[in-house]
Amino acid sequence: MMFESKKISVHAPATVANVACGFDTLGFALSHPFDEMTLTLTDTGSVVISEITGGFDLPCEAEKNVAGVALLSLMAALDDKHIGFDITIQKNIKPGSGIGSSSASAAGAVVAANHLIGGKFSALQLIEFAMQGEKLASGTAHADNVAPAVMGGFTLVRSNCPLDVVKLPVPPNLYAVVIHPLIEVKTSDARKILKTHVSLKDAVTQWSNVGGLVAGLFMSDYGLIARSLQDVIVEPIRSILIPAFDELKQRCLSAGALGGGISGSGPSVFMLCDGLEKAQLVEKAMQAVYSQLAVSYETHVSPIGQQGVLVC
Amino acid sequence: MMFESKKISVHAPATVANVACGFDTLGFALSHPFDEMTLTLTDTGSVVISEITGGFDLPCEAEKNVAGVALLSLMAALDDKHIGFDITIQKNIKPGSGIGSSSASAAGAVVAANHLIGGKFSALQLIEFAMQGEKLASGTAHADNVAPAVMGGFTLVRSNCPLDVVKLPVPPNLYAVVIHPLIEVKTSDARKILKTHVSLKDAVTQWSNVGGLVAGLFMSDYGLIARSLQDVIVEPIRSILIPAFDELKQRCLSAGALGGGISGSGPSVFMLCDGLEKAQLVEKAMQAVYSQLAVSYETHVSPIGQQGVLVC
Repeated sequence: MMFESKKISVHAPATVANVACGFDTLGFALSHPFDEMTLTLTDTGSVVISEITGGFDLPCEAEKNVAGVALLSLMAALDDKHIGFDITIQKNIKPGSGIGSSSASAAGAVVAANHLIGGKFSALQLIEFAMQGEKLASGTAHADNVAPAVMGGFTLVRSNCPLDVVKLPVPPNLYAVVIHPLIEVKTSDARKILKTHVSLKDAVTQWSNVGGLVAGLFMSDYGLIARSLQDVIVEPIRSILIPAFDELKQRCLSAGALGGGISGSGPSVFMLCDGLEKAQLVEKAMQAVYSQLAVSYETHVSPIGQQGVLVC
Repeated sequence: MMFESKKISVHAPATVANVACGFDTLGFALSHPFDEMTLTLTDTGSVVISEITGGFDLPCEAEKNVAGVALLSLMAALDDKHIGFDITIQKNIKPGSGIGSSSASAAGAVVAANHLIGGKFSALQLIEFAMQGEKLASGTAHADNVAPAVMGGFTLVRSNCPLDVVKLPVPPNLYAVVIHPLIEVKTSDARKILKTHVSLKDAVTQWSNVGGLVAGLFMSDYGLIARSLQDVIVEPIRSILIPAFDELKQRCLSAGALGGGISGSGPSVFMLCDGLEKAQLVEKAMQAVYSQLAVSYETHVSPIGQQGVLVC
């Protein structure tokens, strides 16, 4: 079987996993930053990563690259073993930032590939393929970043195995502000410091807040969203890895943020805001705190990304 | 100040707390069974429980009766210290059944009283008053039964202190089936056998299911509701107190129940069903299991009670 040369470009967005109370289950997509990826359909039965730009030290061998592994997983599910892909990646989301850099590559690759082969796979299947890329990056096949990257908006991963993902509504006018302190926090290390057991009392608090946050999203109830954005289990432990976390959070809340916390396993910190104006004030508050520290950083202000991976 | 004699009668419904995954946070009201209560406004500044019928051994002293304590709590929030109430209670919900018998009395009393004094208090305030009655009954002031009794439908208690209750939507055609094995399980005992700590892994599973269940209610997604009705934390421990729990649950699921679990702290077991017909099949399955046991029981089939306490 012969293929005509087919090519597609996508924007694969950054994502915020955990979302305060929803450790290992909630996540949402940003509109930007995003990786720019171009895939070309080939008949080689293999994945060739022909170029990665952006200045990061990322492997081009398919088996060692999250996008490559995600694609190989997709290809393994195809009957036609001649199908292959060439990829170029303009990497804009810094690896290790805690805003789903590896998930963006994995999700972007499989969504683009699925377009090239006529939309053969469901969103859920694409998430499963992308999770294989995630597994390479973090050691565990979690869906809390790849799910919002593929589906857009807010997602709830009810179960990883069997995979069960719920797309949640996004209230109008909801913005995210992210600060990325340019320090390294490895996902595997951030996971190691967590306690294996938690008090039932804290667990009840946490799942009450998860229920409140999900309800708040459905009801576009910003007050309820704000009250529910509390993490009594993971944040008290992981926040010690993030410079000036408590002051940062307090200043953001004072500046009008609904609430927030650690993005994924950090070091990025996110805040949700009702409207662009408040989001910009919160960004300024973040900058005010970090400009006092000897830590480089960058900030992003973005609406919640309704689309996930976007075909250009 | 003088009062004209004012009287009101209400139906105060049974409720199911916890709802599988939502220990100490979720609850819903049934349409029946319900207690029948009649309150008369007086100018004595006191609560007189003039009659309790139904054949149970319940105290008539206001300070020892959950309805009395709830009313005294409401009265303490009034400026006018002459306001008092006479109550008669036809108790239909068996005490100790695990379907919110004490909550029904407490909620019915304060909702009825509030009508008599012109609706001075909000639903949230009424829940707080009723919680004082609950405290008398179970030792802790939880809102997971009184909230649905006062507000109707499904409720999420996001926080007990400060009290924050979210009313969740009820999918059309949702029925509950309850079996009450006529054995005694004290709430305080059922609480004592719980572990004080749980694994983070189980906690994540639990709050993912809480999120899924809340989303399922908003989306009227019966499949998602069914998949989310899982309790990996409390049910494995408390179910040992309930005769033939595993077989009962399995038979109910086979008969078409969406899912279910222990109602409150037991011994009642509830199942949710999509439609009356399935609910009746599930009731038959429950009866088939319990007719083999040397345990008396009763069953109830009811739509979810949209109203909560109902003024007759």
